[in-house]
Amino acid sequence: MPYPELDVPIRILLGPGPSMVHPRVLRAMATPLIGHLDPAFFQMMGEVQALLRYTFQTKNWFTVVIPGTGSAGMEAALANFIEPGDSVLICVNGYFGERMFEMALRYGAQVHRLDKPWGEIFTPEEVDKALREHPSKLVAIVHAETSTGVLQPLEGLAEVVHNHGALLLVDTVTSLGGVPVKVDAWDLDIVYSATQKALNAPPGLAPLTLSQRAEEALKERQTPVRSWYLDLTLHSKYWGAERAYHHTAPISMMYALREALRIIDEEGLERRWRRHERNAQLLWEGLEDLGLELYVPEEYRLPTLTTVRVPEDVNERYARRRLLEDYNIEIAGGLGALKGKVWRIGLMGYAARRENVLMLLAAMKHILQK
Amino acid sequence: MPYPELDVPIRILLGPGPSMVHPRVLRAMATPLIGHLDPAFFQMMGEVQALLRYTFQTKNWFTVVIPGTGSAGMEAALANFIEPGDSVLICVNGYFGERMFEMALRYGAQVHRLDKPWGEIFTPEEVDKALREHPSKLVAIVHAETSTGVLQPLEGLAEVVHNHGALLLVDTVTSLGGVPVKVDAWDLDIVYSATQKALNAPPGLAPLTLSQRAEEALKERQTPVRSWYLDLTLHSKYWGAERAYHHTAPISMMYALREALRIIDEEGLERRWRRHERNAQLLWEGLEDLGLELYVPEEYRLPTLTTVRVPEDVNERYARRRLLEDYNIEIAGGLGALKGKVWRIGLMGYAARRENVLMLLAAMKHILQK
Repeated sequence: MPYPELDVPIRILLGPGPSMVHPRVLRAMATPLIGHLDPAFFQMMGEVQALLRYTFQTKNWFTVVIPGTGSAGMEAALANFIEPGDSVLICVNGYFGERMFEMALRYGAQVHRLDKPWGEIFTPEEVDKALREHPSKLVAIVHAETSTGVLQPLEGLAEVVHNHGALLLVDTVTSLGGVPVKVDAWDLDIVYSATQKALNAPPGLAPLTLSQRAEEALKERQTPVRSWYLDLTLHSKYWGAERAYHHTAPISMMYALREALRIIDEEGLERRWRRHERNAQLLWEGLEDLGLELYVPEEYRLPTLTTVRVPEDVNERYARRRLLEDYNIEIAGGLGALKGKVWRIGLMGYAARRENVLMLLAAMKHILQK
Repeated sequence: MPYPELDVPIRILLGPGPSMVHPRVLRAMATPLIGHLDPAFFQMMGEVQALLRYTFQTKNWFTVVIPGTGSAGMEAALANFIEPGDSVLICVNGYFGERMFEMALRYGAQVHRLDKPWGEIFTPEEVDKALREHPSKLVAIVHAETSTGVLQPLEGLAEVVHNHGALLLVDTVTSLGGVPVKVDAWDLDIVYSATQKALNAPPGLAPLTLSQRAEEALKERQTPVRSWYLDLTLHSKYWGAERAYHHTAPISMMYALREALRIIDEEGLERRWRRHERNAQLLWEGLEDLGLELYVPEEYRLPTLTTVRVPEDVNERYARRRLLEDYNIEIAGGLGALKGKVWRIGLMGYAARRENVLMLLAAMKHILQK
């Protein structure tokens, strides 16, 4: 039986990711491959690093791309800074905090949880108190919780964490490239993201950056990192001057990432952040006009991902299926504790456009009126 | 400073991978994205699984794609079948056997090495003897050693391994799609590969298949897999009927893999294997005509990757640089114990073509005459 040519529906991706990818990025991926040890590829890696430093707002030398999805970035971030028995503090107020907790356990850490209800944020005072009760080597927190739509403020947090001699690990999967992420100004130590959200490249890569402080900690490890694939010291030898072979870099995905970052560089971060803010505002007003209730207070509502309560008389899955099948628009349902209770709407990077917001609102209006 | 448009040299990739990618595969990647939980994507996953089963020559239900490079496939294969303290036997006759040894150590196994000089093969009798001395739960072996160009015969090996109650894990990174890999006929238990060799998709994904026996072993684990990202039980819930979210699948890479596998399906494995054999033969004769010595005896020489000794009076790196810079042809130098001693020439999938062989031989003749 011969398989037919690839023929997928053309979707408007307004879920939590993957986001829509700019045609320039798609085109870049169709470029014939070069080798992962070709001098021309090394030059490209350097460009990607420089572009990532701009996007992360950092001067960190250690800025690399992990050859896996955002969860590989999360695991690399945790695995390299946990030795068996180490105490770590994980802030959990959503699905991805839970995931960090789970991973830290698997890597043999003594894990303390700082819990808040889903949809709330942590204050530096709460983290300070937790660290006084449970001295830890590492504090991990999610900047933009994709499961709840909460934007965690980070200003002032590093000072507290550093006063306790710990490192601050931050998940910026759903914030980088869409809302301010200021690695140096906020003094963050271990920061990772993913390509398929506001960076607008396809899923499959996880940018990651380490402060000098984190680099030092890495050097002081007494035991090998349990994962060979995610061992950052080995990665740094490929990304650094040695160019030592570790893995075969995902060439085509790197083409895509370079082009996606180049688009960000051309637009400029400040303008890009404002565009996200503006379009999120338009979405929020439109949803409220439809009589819907936003899940997160405006004060810490995330522009890249909006959670909106499903009205009690609406079948959540059915409405979403109509949106996908009849309008080719993808949004997502809730995860974990919010399953069936909210929709999650992403406006990420290229997709954060007025026309997309209006299209979605009009389609939702149709569906909710039925 | 604005970054210029992506502009990489057009290379003829005849190294150990990435291999050249068929234009149809490049074009498939330029397809706009759909979501990783879209029913249309689930259908595509099913097609990729069916195509992989054909390529692996297996009926294994558990046939998935790991979202990482070949080394991620290797680590997934080992990590899921090692619990701390488990005895495993690793056959080491090259760089990738060494890598498996290193990974197994990190996962807490009690690792026994069965060593052979680089460039030689293992016999079932040798494995049998090693298992009698070191009873093990798992035996790991490389089918096609990319560092040496050796094709390890696998017939008869599983019987020995299974008689000792162990599982047989096989690395087919450089064999799958280029030389016969018969997972069911050879009764292999844990088999992984990578996309960027004879499958001719870009690097970044690792197909993996498990026998029923391996599936059972997975279910009997007493401790969680240390790596969350590579936990195959979680992967199986995404690839199986549950469709439970684990990671965000690398959509564009999956488009590429589907198209690459479709091309294999169209050509047919038997014809494809013969084409690799024929073109390798042409290469081997041509290299010998140039007065060069092949590293591996013809009896177990690998058609997809040829190692050839560097003549004593030739500067290995310089010759390779000339080939790359003046002729845009990439081949590789030796790895590990063979560094500086051999060149490695790949003829993989789409690239295994008469015209490429002739071009390479002519260019090498030019360079060696200088």
